[in-house]
Amino acid sequence: MLEPSLDLYGEAAERVEGLLVDLLTQSRARYALLIDRQGFVILHRRAAWAPKPPSLDSLATLIASNHSANEAIAQLFGEASFRESVQQSDGVGTYVESVGDKALLVTVFDATAPLGKVKLFTKRALERIQAVLDETREAAPMADIGGSFSAHAGALLDELFGDGKTP
Amino acid sequence: MLEPSLDLYGEAAERVEGLLVDLLTQSRARYALLIDRQGFVILHRRAAWAPKPPSLDSLATLIASNHSANEAIAQLFGEASFRESVQQSDGVGTYVESVGDKALLVTVFDATAPLGKVKLFTKRALERIQAVLDETREAAPMADIGGSFSAHAGALLDELFGDGKTP
Repeated sequence: MLEPSLDLYGEAAERVEGLLVDLLTQSRARYALLIDRQGFVILHRRAAWAPKPPSLDSLATLIASNHSANEAIAQLFGEASFRESVQQSDGVGTYVESVGDKALLVTVFDATAPLGKVKLFTKRALERIQAVLDETREAAPMADIGGSFSAHAGALLDELFGDGKTP
Repeated sequence: MLEPSLDLYGEAAERVEGLLVDLLTQSRARYALLIDRQGFVILHRRAAWAPKPPSLDSLATLIASNHSANEAIAQLFGEASFRESVQQSDGVGTYVESVGDKALLVTVFDATAPLGKVKLFTKRALERIQAVLDETREAAPMADIGGSFSAHAGALLDELFGDGKTP
């Protein structure tokens, strides 16, 4: 089954949600979403004044798929991918930035939010979200199946089957 | 066979090519292309100093296809399509604007061209290209198969087959 390539729980999720709220307050954008590159919504926030958004699952799927398609264009010019992408109509716009190589930060805004502010505060949120993700990765509890486990298991197997040296 | 939905010949083509050259000079962008929504390159120009571009046919196809995909996102928000679109990596960027409902104006730039200038001069070129296209459409020679032809043909048919009134 297809699963999100990035999961956020507990305190880390709360901190990122706080950053999305700050982004909306500072930029006056409507919605902010953290999605993964497969199109799963990881976290999202909506400005209190913003109208009900369309299906965020559909939006995330379309944006992730377009991001992949854009990579083909970037690659024509010898670039791995485009770092940022802005789409604007008269009524609404989207601003998308890469968060590492697994996620995208999406800000949806309308004519009341100046694009300069949207870009500035999305970039600022991006740095802070990246920091939270980096910390989470470092702090993740890992079962230690390293050196000492291997040595111990080896010794046990030797005891059961011999170490291959004594006949 | 799939054919471009927009053709430009003679003086009109020369005028639009001149506008693409002006756009490149003023914005310091690398390449400027007028493509149709199916991905055909109608006209293109390259700055004298710019490196050899990648396949412009591939670029036009990818950009037109992405433009259609972006319409699905715009439609989620009740918009027909996005009017403008910017993609940026560290090395290169593309700026795409709709020219009426049949064509797209594409400006490809690198870090030496400020995005503000690229947007300003692409918008200016867009207005002028639109004016040339409008003039061309008005001036196109049309075979008159209107009122007098119909009446004349009707009279001829009546003469051949009778007008259905006399037995």
